[in-house]
Amino acid sequence: MKFIEGGVCAAKGFKASGVHCGIRKNRTKKDLALIVSEVRGAAAGVYTQNLVQGAPIVVTKAHLEDGMARAIICNSGNANTCNADGVDIANEMCRLVEVATGIPANDVIVASTGVIGQPLSTEPVEKAMPQLVAELSDNGSIEAACAIMTTDTVSKEVAVEFELGGKICHLGGISKGSGMIHPNMATMLAFLTTDAAISSEMLTKALKADVKNSFNMLSVDGDTSTNDTLTIIANGLAGNAPITCENDDYAVFTEALAAVTHTLCRIMAKDGEGATKLIVCHAAGGKTEAIAKTVAKSVICSSLTKAAMFGADANWGRVLCAIGYAGADVDVTKIDVDFVSKAGTVAVCRNGAGVPFSEEIAKTVLLEDEITIEVGLNDGAFEATAWGCDLTYDYVKINGDYRT
Amino acid sequence: MKFIEGGVCAAKGFKASGVHCGIRKNRTKKDLALIVSEVRGAAAGVYTQNLVQGAPIVVTKAHLEDGMARAIICNSGNANTCNADGVDIANEMCRLVEVATGIPANDVIVASTGVIGQPLSTEPVEKAMPQLVAELSDNGSIEAACAIMTTDTVSKEVAVEFELGGKICHLGGISKGSGMIHPNMATMLAFLTTDAAISSEMLTKALKADVKNSFNMLSVDGDTSTNDTLTIIANGLAGNAPITCENDDYAVFTEALAAVTHTLCRIMAKDGEGATKLIVCHAAGGKTEAIAKTVAKSVICSSLTKAAMFGADANWGRVLCAIGYAGADVDVTKIDVDFVSKAGTVAVCRNGAGVPFSEEIAKTVLLEDEITIEVGLNDGAFEATAWGCDLTYDYVKINGDYRT
Repeated sequence: MKFIEGGVCAAKGFKASGVHCGIRKNRTKKDLALIVSEVRGAAAGVYTQNLVQGAPIVVTKAHLEDGMARAIICNSGNANTCNADGVDIANEMCRLVEVATGIPANDVIVASTGVIGQPLSTEPVEKAMPQLVAELSDNGSIEAACAIMTTDTVSKEVAVEFELGGKICHLGGISKGSGMIHPNMATMLAFLTTDAAISSEMLTKALKADVKNSFNMLSVDGDTSTNDTLTIIANGLAGNAPITCENDDYAVFTEALAAVTHTLCRIMAKDGEGATKLIVCHAAGGKTEAIAKTVAKSVICSSLTKAAMFGADANWGRVLCAIGYAGADVDVTKIDVDFVSKAGTVAVCRNGAGVPFSEEIAKTVLLEDEITIEVGLNDGAFEATAWGCDLTYDYVKINGDYRT
Repeated sequence: MKFIEGGVCAAKGFKASGVHCGIRKNRTKKDLALIVSEVRGAAAGVYTQNLVQGAPIVVTKAHLEDGMARAIICNSGNANTCNADGVDIANEMCRLVEVATGIPANDVIVASTGVIGQPLSTEPVEKAMPQLVAELSDNGSIEAACAIMTTDTVSKEVAVEFELGGKICHLGGISKGSGMIHPNMATMLAFLTTDAAISSEMLTKALKADVKNSFNMLSVDGDTSTNDTLTIIANGLAGNAPITCENDDYAVFTEALAAVTHTLCRIMAKDGEGATKLIVCHAAGGKTEAIAKTVAKSVICSSLTKAAMFGADANWGRVLCAIGYAGADVDVTKIDVDFVSKAGTVAVCRNGAGVPFSEEIAKTVLLEDEITIEVGLNDGAFEATAWGCDLTYDYVKINGDYRT
């Protein structure tokens, strides 16, 4: 398996495009994306666990009931959530895709992201549809990735190439998400495509298993969005023997899936609203996997730890504090903590108590833009990784006046 | 019942003092407090649920096993937590009180607050003890309140006067806490005193019941401290018939207790690290009390809602979002939301969907320094109140370089 270019168009038969249709006032910002497969493919999705759910999720769920899809339409600038006519609007967006492409509305995945509770008109979408379809291209992944961005500062694309039974397959994706990120059994917006042949049943299984270790271990601000949606379409054009059970090919496929999703998580965490650095917590030596996960996630969610990382302050007591209130069964007298970056490693805590360290070296380590907090629970064989970012002035600035 | 002056010295027979002993480098900042009752009294405490617990908690728990206490010693500037010799240090602090006052170490409550994981020497405490005892005074509540402050910007004192069986009783307290505030069945540091006569069993019952509606409904940053401690000493000098069961007197006493603790919660939330305003969420119409509490707490804990309040942005979608991920059983299509302050009320959401409102009026309402978010769940008869604050640049600033 190797990483390649192409994002959501890396897999055979997928084209994408992105345009400015006018939902956003800023004319230089694209706000409408379309992704289309040459043929219908197996499809699966996972969604936010928030009780308040965006209307597009209702429609997408219905359209994926048959496990098949061929296109994705997504706008930014308006979440189409808490609107009385939201479901009608989402359905209309799919109908507009059908009119312009001939792809049945029932095979269209629809998503929206942006402000909650503001009316959304489909007029701009209707007007832009001809251009959006005309611009569909093998190189369009970047256009689609840009069109779904909100407060993101960089577009997010990843793709990998892998082999199944002698056939070259591809799996790629785009995603968006910077604030209101704290997925729970689902994620912000991420659209994955693959040309591997796999049944929708196995695709769903792979996706549900993957999010537990990928998007569900990612947090920017502890706020679970109302619109989190992750979908994957597998069009089978790679020509491999279709995956229909948990065989070796399935293992290769899930590994490729994890390579893409884990990379998207890193990119998203690092581009968290206002973030200046990626914070990874790797918790090892847990009695169970659930304990390791709970610990890793609690550390990257701690506001105080996040602010300390912003200040490059080796305030490890806050890491211990976050482990202590995580609600996980750990022996605090066994805990070790190290801060690690490409500038080096600094050991700050052994057996739950401080050890002497050089503040100067610690500062050098923590001034890097990717920090790993290594937690040794020394209590078992399970480990977990969680991705987050620092808490900065800019997070406050961005969210103090998001609507205006 | 009426509010009075005097804080922790409002009740008969209590004296307090606070000095700078040198644990903190800043000579203008007091860092050691002593509170003493003329006579031994019934005592009760509740503590942090964090698995990482400050050493003083271990010692205080042991000293309160007999349900009696007479003095409190507390330092700021060092939490005495995650130190290998922490328990010895905490015991030594109690012994120093015994040497200086004759009060048995076993009747002394000890607490520490400040940085975690830094060695604490008792030398400064020992040197300052004569002055600390000499300065004990009926007017010393303010000195003690100042000495326990860390990043607090205002000292916190409250007291009430009430009548039990014709006898005038008093209940007062001091507290500290600005960051790392997200109590879980306990609180930051708060010391209460009363001259009401009440058995230690009933005192414990009253305290445990009270925190569920007071300090456990308070959050500044979602980080549950390692040192949270709330204690109360009742010395009985008011001369009322001792409270030994849940009678009418007990009801009057718990009402006085709630008046003090709820007021301290408001003051603490408003003085949250970096905060410019108090945010109260009042959730009404819940199917159960637990649902109302979960909803109210989720709203005041949402980073996005907190940042919007800082920006005086009526972004009610974030309130809906926080209710939706709270994990409470609510019907999102029934939810109403209003923003309320002394400048007026603005209705922003009815039945889970937005209603038109004047952005100008909303801004005026939200520019006040005390905002109530009124949530109507319209699903039952239970209500709850939670206290928080906005998320500001200064929170990040304070916590980006707390140790340095």
